Amino acid sequence: MAPTSQTTDYLIAPQPSNKGLTRVVQGTDHTGAAAETSVVEERPLTIFLNSREIVTAMTIGDYPEYLALGFLRNQGMLSDADVVTGIDFDEELETVVVRTAKETDHEDKLKKKTRTSGCAVGTVFGDMMEGLEGLTLPPTQARTSDLYALAHKINRTPSLYLEAGAIHGSVLCQGDRPLVYMEDVGRHNAVDKIAGWMFDTKTEAADKVLYTTGRLTSEMVIKTALMGIPVLASRSGFTAWGVEIAQKVGLTLIGRMRGQRFICLSGEDRLIRDVDPATVPDDAKKSRRKSAGDD
Amino acid sequence: MAPTSQTTDYLIAPQPSNKGLTRVVQGTDHTGAAAETSVVEERPLTIFLNSREIVTAMTIGDYPEYLALGFLRNQGMLSDADVVTGIDFDEELETVVVRTAKETDHEDKLKKKTRTSGCAVGTVFGDMMEGLEGLTLPPTQARTSDLYALAHKINRTPSLYLEAGAIHGSVLCQGDRPLVYMEDVGRHNAVDKIAGWMFDTKTEAADKVLYTTGRLTSEMVIKTALMGIPVLASRSGFTAWGVEIAQKVGLTLIGRMRGQRFICLSGEDRLIRDVDPATVPDDAKKSRRKSAGDD
Repeated sequence: MAPTSQTTDYLIAPQPSNKGLTRVVQGTDHTGAAAETSVVEERPLTIFLNSREIVTAMTIGDYPEYLALGFLRNQGMLSDADVVTGIDFDEELETVVVRTAKETDHEDKLKKKTRTSGCAVGTVFGDMMEGLEGLTLPPTQARTSDLYALAHKINRTPSLYLEAGAIHGSVLCQGDRPLVYMEDVGRHNAVDKIAGWMFDTKTEAADKVLYTTGRLTSEMVIKTALMGIPVLASRSGFTAWGVEIAQKVGLTLIGRMRGQRFICLSGEDRLIRDVDPATVPDDAKKSRRKSAGDD
Repeated sequence: MAPTSQTTDYLIAPQPSNKGLTRVVQGTDHTGAAAETSVVEERPLTIFLNSREIVTAMTIGDYPEYLALGFLRNQGMLSDADVVTGIDFDEELETVVVRTAKETDHEDKLKKKTRTSGCAVGTVFGDMMEGLEGLTLPPTQARTSDLYALAHKINRTPSLYLEAGAIHGSVLCQGDRPLVYMEDVGRHNAVDKIAGWMFDTKTEAADKVLYTTGRLTSEMVIKTALMGIPVLASRSGFTAWGVEIAQKVGLTLIGRMRGQRFICLSGEDRLIRDVDPATVPDDAKKSRRKSAGDD
């Protein structure tokens, strides 16, 4: 399908033409000739929960409200019980303040700091793990035909990734339809923006699939499970702990998804293999090349 | 050149055959057939500075002492003035304690937390920026012939990256020789392990080049500059702020280095273009493919 027809399917699509998210920089190429190239923006955004400063995230800067909501949500600092009374973003001060009806008990959580391979500064790791205790993900099944269709559409969707590279994407999907495609310099931000959107729109997670360009690390698996999404797919690889946690919580984990190939290391039972991989077209050379070496 | 002859050049080379760093996991492939694959380990390591818990890093687990030293060094919590009296790693407790002759003033720093796109949980960003004030990097020149030779050798060095993927590498280089090649699930860890090795061995930075598989974000540029290394090269892309900071401190920043191609967005004056790019062999298909989608 043509990129345009893809984009119209989305509730939120990437914004490659949003001039505020990239910058043209002058340099020289390998021949010594002057060259100009488009690079993604990277800005600090300090997130406050009521009167307390929580963290400063480096982000491309779109959807600061969703990023703040999702970060707090995924850190367990905001629960369904909490009533958000307001979210104030100040572009000049580069701050976003999330206000709740009553103060939350995040102070103790802030005492613990974990630096994950998934880049969540300030991730309260032990706390996230606790959140997994007794968690059961819905038995929703996933058709391989849908997964292939999603990868095909997502890889061909005009994005900052195709435009400037050096950026990550995470996409909330339903069936064969990508719904919300968030991009950011850190894939943790992209996932948090999706979590924020889901929290804000009260979107059900049970029938969704999360697709990411990033690696399937412990943090990505934990966040996906905490968000209640039963299937996580990526074109990238795995870490051992990510696989271990996925198996523990029964999350369907699919990685190294390229063209007709993929490998499933957890939750095989949820997969409905309704298509012959041989009939699936190979990965577009372009998207494959563009992704090389990004992180 | 053959991988083996490469490896012997290194002071520290990757350890793809170290069974403790990867795990074989069973799963199913796209055809539904049983498949087993090798995935990298990801373990928590809690870093203490004297009696104070600083951060828990997610790491593959090699060189915990260098990781601890380098993290503290790059966070400005350890200076040349500090005398390290001991480093105790406890594999069972997954902790490493760095002891100094006198307590350092890192407490205030811990009050500020920044989540960077470069994944440094607990990075004291404002503080790192201050560290750049008045910093001048040595005018050491870099030959493009050496940069091409380094990329060629590094891409062909047996590594966990080629073995299992989903991992980052950073390599400390001198002239056309890669000296210390560190890998980790987070590239910030790989760089910190190099910083720790340099601190421990009192290695001079002025004549070195840092090569990384990761993106050239603000954090990577700041760390490289703080380490005193004048040239940073990567096969991956840039962020706008990374470029801006490199230009401010006069760091030579080279990105999207693939085969004969690269782009220099800062510190062009330091480059000696002593080779015709047309004579440089194109990137090995294998290393290009393997890197796709990793982060």
